[in-house]
Amino acid sequence: MSTFRSIEWKGDRLVLLDQRRIPEAKVFLELTAPEEVAAAIREMAVRGAPAIGAAAAFGVVLAARRGEALAEADALLRASRPTAVNLFWALDRMKRVWEGYSGAAQALVQALEAEALKIAEEDVAANKAIGRHALELIPDEARILHHCNTGSLATVDYGTALGIIRIAHEAGKKVHAFLDETRPRLQGARLSAWELRELGIPHTVIADGASGHVMQKFGIDLVVVGADRIAASGDTANKIGTYNLAIAARHHGVPFYVAAPTSTVDLETPSGAAIPIEERDARELTHCGPVRVVPEGSPVYNPAFDVTPAELISAIVTEAGIAYPPYEKSLPALVRKAQGGHP
Amino acid sequence: MSTFRSIEWKGDRLVLLDQRRIPEAKVFLELTAPEEVAAAIREMAVRGAPAIGAAAAFGVVLAARRGEALAEADALLRASRPTAVNLFWALDRMKRVWEGYSGAAQALVQALEAEALKIAEEDVAANKAIGRHALELIPDEARILHHCNTGSLATVDYGTALGIIRIAHEAGKKVHAFLDETRPRLQGARLSAWELRELGIPHTVIADGASGHVMQKFGIDLVVVGADRIAASGDTANKIGTYNLAIAARHHGVPFYVAAPTSTVDLETPSGAAIPIEERDARELTHCGPVRVVPEGSPVYNPAFDVTPAELISAIVTEAGIAYPPYEKSLPALVRKAQGGHP
Repeated sequence: MSTFRSIEWKGDRLVLLDQRRIPEAKVFLELTAPEEVAAAIREMAVRGAPAIGAAAAFGVVLAARRGEALAEADALLRASRPTAVNLFWALDRMKRVWEGYSGAAQALVQALEAEALKIAEEDVAANKAIGRHALELIPDEARILHHCNTGSLATVDYGTALGIIRIAHEAGKKVHAFLDETRPRLQGARLSAWELRELGIPHTVIADGASGHVMQKFGIDLVVVGADRIAASGDTANKIGTYNLAIAARHHGVPFYVAAPTSTVDLETPSGAAIPIEERDARELTHCGPVRVVPEGSPVYNPAFDVTPAELISAIVTEAGIAYPPYEKSLPALVRKAQGGHP
Repeated sequence: MSTFRSIEWKGDRLVLLDQRRIPEAKVFLELTAPEEVAAAIREMAVRGAPAIGAAAAFGVVLAARRGEALAEADALLRASRPTAVNLFWALDRMKRVWEGYSGAAQALVQALEAEALKIAEEDVAANKAIGRHALELIPDEARILHHCNTGSLATVDYGTALGIIRIAHEAGKKVHAFLDETRPRLQGARLSAWELRELGIPHTVIADGASGHVMQKFGIDLVVVGADRIAASGDTANKIGTYNLAIAARHHGVPFYVAAPTSTVDLETPSGAAIPIEERDARELTHCGPVRVVPEGSPVYNPAFDVTPAELISAIVTEAGIAYPPYEKSLPALVRKAQGGHP
């Protein structure tokens, strides 16, 4: 358990740690309306696929508490970001509670609250299970390269890929994390370094372009990243720069692992080509704080994610176990197992 | 010829366009002492392997004008940056003029000034020749990916890799340049975009981590980069991130070209392993302008360059022609040709 929760339900409001302010300041947002939650997701005050799924679920609870139309709140929250499938997965779970409901309003609020809390609790449990399963993949001494942020901040708690690093450290393995700073929003520099420093886990921040050089010069034992959506084929959408890192890992013969709960697996999406890739505001690239760094009139292209083809992924670690290629077979089995069916 | 010169000799002073201020402001520095030139190189007011070679040469002229000890000025300038070999190559040329000189001081100043001007003029001519030789490598419609800045700013004028893009554009080819922003100092975003916008050449700035995604999504016809030092083997030191880009190009079957004058070829350095790699101030990564982005206490690793092995390089374009593998044979032949000997 961390000394903070990036996302916490207080019975009448959702409290989010504003991730845009880390590491300068620890500021908490108190949200009481679904449109505030949608804005927090869109503007990345809360980010990370599992965290935005849970936040959206509480957004539906807030709408119910206010007696607002749930279909409208649902549509608003669904439109906040397009790539991470956990958002739609969580809203689908909430919808199964409210759709066609005809009982007392107060009972519906309670049922929705219970479902949202279950989503949040299951995420923490899933992350710990991911970390335990991954232990067998991590040497006793390991230099691990990591992209973006996939820790407590990106999830309800503990984290996926960063959670693996944390659990390996807590299990007594001697790990050193190299953290891609992760342009343009610097989640690696700002958030992952902050989390690992708080936890006392040795780490070094590098520019994204330095990952190949670090593999060449120091040697890296494994790369581990999170995911925003994993297609049935195993193709994985994750923060922009993940694909370059996977190519560099393959070139150096370094294992490349994806860590995510099965809620990130989207069996309805056959392959990476079908995953919508969000493009974000040009300002993320054109400005550095208030200062313009790209000249006025020069166009930029700012995709938030890229797709790493399954053939570059050594294994996908979920709370239900480790999927190995061919993912078309191993992923559906793990999803069924997670849902309580036969693997 | 550009509307500005990044480096210009005024008879009694060296005028440098302060590249740290582009694109916000066009500020010129007027330098009259060798230690000012060394500081401008060290702090990257002037940067780019050919530009720092020429600047250092004028630093020696300034020392001679002031009647200072040339051996001391030479040592000071040599210590300003370690990786780009053009610095040492230019200072060696100047040293051959002053070492053992026993005539009148005024005549020595004139001889040194003539040699420095020759270095600068030869650089402009070399860049134009590089662009002409490269024309055969560029399709009539070409999406070209470029890293860092290798244009007029990085050279005395015209540029090496960016010069190729410019000459192809001027020759009527339909080129579109994708520009890696090039963390941590953003030379691609700040400088290359500024140059191409001034020249009216279509371009798009991307995060370094997006290059693989751009190859996958849009298709890239070729990658072209500059060089800070090319070993006899063809292994090439260039701005950090170049190696990742070369790996991504290989993965996609995209030709990867290095463009540099033969003054960047160092036949005394057998391979990349022998090239010293400069590490720069942590602050380049820890801060974004005045704002700290990496938390206090989190270590960073900030190499300024990486080494791309020769096997990832499709060809090396110099003013004396194009070198193809095996570079152990083709590079010495081009260096001899450039020096006026038999190829």
